[in-house]
Amino acid sequence: MNIAVAQSGGPTCAINASLVGVFGQALKTPGIDAVFGSRCGIEGVIGDDLIDLKRVIRTNEDMELLRQTPSTVLGSCRYKLPDYGSDEGAEVYDRIFSVLEKHRIEAFFYIGGNDSMDTVQKLSEHAARIGSGIRFVGVPKTIDNDLPVTDHTPGFGSAAKYVSATVQEIIRDSSVYSIDSVTIIEIMGRHAGWLTASTCVLKANDEIAPHLIYLPESDFSVERFLEDVRSERAKHKALIVAVSEGINIGDVEARSGASDNFGHMYLSGVGKALEQIVREEIGCKVRSIELNVMQRCSSHICSKTDIDEAEAIGAEAVKAAMRGETGVTMVFRRLSDKPYVVTVETADTALMANKEKFFPREWINAAGNNVSDEAIKYFLPLIQGEVNIAMKNGMPVHFKMHI
Amino acid sequence: MNIAVAQSGGPTCAINASLVGVFGQALKTPGIDAVFGSRCGIEGVIGDDLIDLKRVIRTNEDMELLRQTPSTVLGSCRYKLPDYGSDEGAEVYDRIFSVLEKHRIEAFFYIGGNDSMDTVQKLSEHAARIGSGIRFVGVPKTIDNDLPVTDHTPGFGSAAKYVSATVQEIIRDSSVYSIDSVTIIEIMGRHAGWLTASTCVLKANDEIAPHLIYLPESDFSVERFLEDVRSERAKHKALIVAVSEGINIGDVEARSGASDNFGHMYLSGVGKALEQIVREEIGCKVRSIELNVMQRCSSHICSKTDIDEAEAIGAEAVKAAMRGETGVTMVFRRLSDKPYVVTVETADTALMANKEKFFPREWINAAGNNVSDEAIKYFLPLIQGEVNIAMKNGMPVHFKMHI
Repeated sequence: MNIAVAQSGGPTCAINASLVGVFGQALKTPGIDAVFGSRCGIEGVIGDDLIDLKRVIRTNEDMELLRQTPSTVLGSCRYKLPDYGSDEGAEVYDRIFSVLEKHRIEAFFYIGGNDSMDTVQKLSEHAARIGSGIRFVGVPKTIDNDLPVTDHTPGFGSAAKYVSATVQEIIRDSSVYSIDSVTIIEIMGRHAGWLTASTCVLKANDEIAPHLIYLPESDFSVERFLEDVRSERAKHKALIVAVSEGINIGDVEARSGASDNFGHMYLSGVGKALEQIVREEIGCKVRSIELNVMQRCSSHICSKTDIDEAEAIGAEAVKAAMRGETGVTMVFRRLSDKPYVVTVETADTALMANKEKFFPREWINAAGNNVSDEAIKYFLPLIQGEVNIAMKNGMPVHFKMHI
Repeated sequence: MNIAVAQSGGPTCAINASLVGVFGQALKTPGIDAVFGSRCGIEGVIGDDLIDLKRVIRTNEDMELLRQTPSTVLGSCRYKLPDYGSDEGAEVYDRIFSVLEKHRIEAFFYIGGNDSMDTVQKLSEHAARIGSGIRFVGVPKTIDNDLPVTDHTPGFGSAAKYVSATVQEIIRDSSVYSIDSVTIIEIMGRHAGWLTASTCVLKANDEIAPHLIYLPESDFSVERFLEDVRSERAKHKALIVAVSEGINIGDVEARSGASDNFGHMYLSGVGKALEQIVREEIGCKVRSIELNVMQRCSSHICSKTDIDEAEAIGAEAVKAAMRGETGVTMVFRRLSDKPYVVTVETADTALMANKEKFFPREWINAAGNNVSDEAIKYFLPLIQGEVNIAMKNGMPVHFKMHI
């Protein structure tokens, strides 16, 4: 039998490690012949654009470099499968299954987030519908950490490690001048605040900052934000504010009456908008910093725990498929924080497809501007350890596929 | 005798390493008793806000951590000394010399950029004027690398290493989707393009990108930029553009006639402005990324060469002062690229105070949109080697001064 693997959704530091996990386990599994990589997610299956991975990942060194290389080596997509009952549905499903059958692919692994799990669910349902034995297994990944059931998602730990290390450096940077200042750091997370909240781990290293943390899960109001900034400024010369890109500052427009003006600001993100509000309303030195895509691709400071787990969960997915499981997604279950112990299990993909897991309300303080020590205990194990990054000419070496 | 040291200007990853160099060499030098640190640059001398550094840097571990900690542990300032002949001039100079004499300080070391060298020059001139034996020695630092005479400046190599590693990760990130895109990366450098140009080192690791590099030293025109983007887009699916924050896009306003609109854009930097221009004029997928203060404080990926050199040049400054030199700034002279050999020498501070060194025109290509192999040879040695960063709880450990 042959198998196929694809990567989908936004890049992370760990999605290639999960690919290595699938590939490495397949090599060790009797009965698996070819391992195909599908270019640009499921689009590669639809377009019959499959690569024989043994031809491109040829040595142990290739595997190690790929583990360390950020983003998706096979390319990605944001393609959502049509419903089976729709006009184009039947055609697309027929096409996918005919390509898989043509290449004798009996198990398909999709590494992705909640949208990608929708694809896994739909394809496993279709297999049941037509009586196909092809198994479909989801391998989670997302820096947003917003997938239900699983304790956390591969890719998140590395993003959290980068964000925390960088916020700590920004704290140092902000403290140099004798003049008071406010620094607003905008962090990814459109609906879920996990990554922004993870900056609380700095407390474990005796940092007081970030002094204020705002998540999409806490009700945001510009008035309370300004009150918070005023009162914290009295205590801290260099105030550090961590803010999720997804907080709702919608009332700003109404408040200012200058929709054109604030419309422009919003284009640049909430950090820039809050910067302008602080400047106008408080009048102090203020700057905003957007961590941008560096949050999802800074492999040079990835979490060893994250990369190791991402590889392991990919390998476990192959085992699950060989056991005959389908329509499942691999998940972590945490048995304890300290010592940190997790097991890998399978869960019904329907529990995760198109669903989001939010940062727990009970870990947000009453004022809605910081998080609790419970959150620190949750986050800390996920950022532990450093990968021995291969360097050449003073820069990390990335795996590149030459085909 | 006692000595004093201060840090000035914008933060870097290496400015604390130079402080460690001054401090460590002073400990080894017979005849030097106390080493004072001046808070917030020369302002600490004016305000008699001096710290006995032996009380705060107590162990070898402290010294190692401080070497690895970004930004300025003593704080910084942007204070420019008044001219001696001015109204306040005489008073400020008297004040500085009386504080130095009160603490028996016979040598003062100022770690900073071209503005700080102005202070070194003025104070050494005043010492001569009043017959004081106090020596003033400059220790260079700036991520801008724009100080004359010296081959390069401490702090630059670490910034260049961070920028190159990050641009490489952004290249990976930009290549995931099947849709064509343009990514514009805005890099620090208001007048000098050294840091932006340094991204050319990626070619040594077989990256083709950045495909376009724009420096303040090359004449920028929006028309030519759009032509470049159009022609490079035909060749590269994910186009990467590196651009100095200091390029002159002034003609944009005139061109669009929408000064209000472009005025707004300009607030967000040239990257955002060019993003909008590409969107409007070419209409493709485009994003801009600002590397922001992370360029100057990302010690977690600092250059070992840079940190070692920063410490060494601080130590050499103490030796120069003990030889009786004053009104000088320490400089690197490069003897060869490969093997990389530099010596540390002294130069007349007057050659550097308030002066800038620009990226050589002859290293810019005829089209003004990329740099030559000569530049790669120049940059590569400066980013070599990694510091063994001390980690705790999965994050770098920073030295913090508890006083």
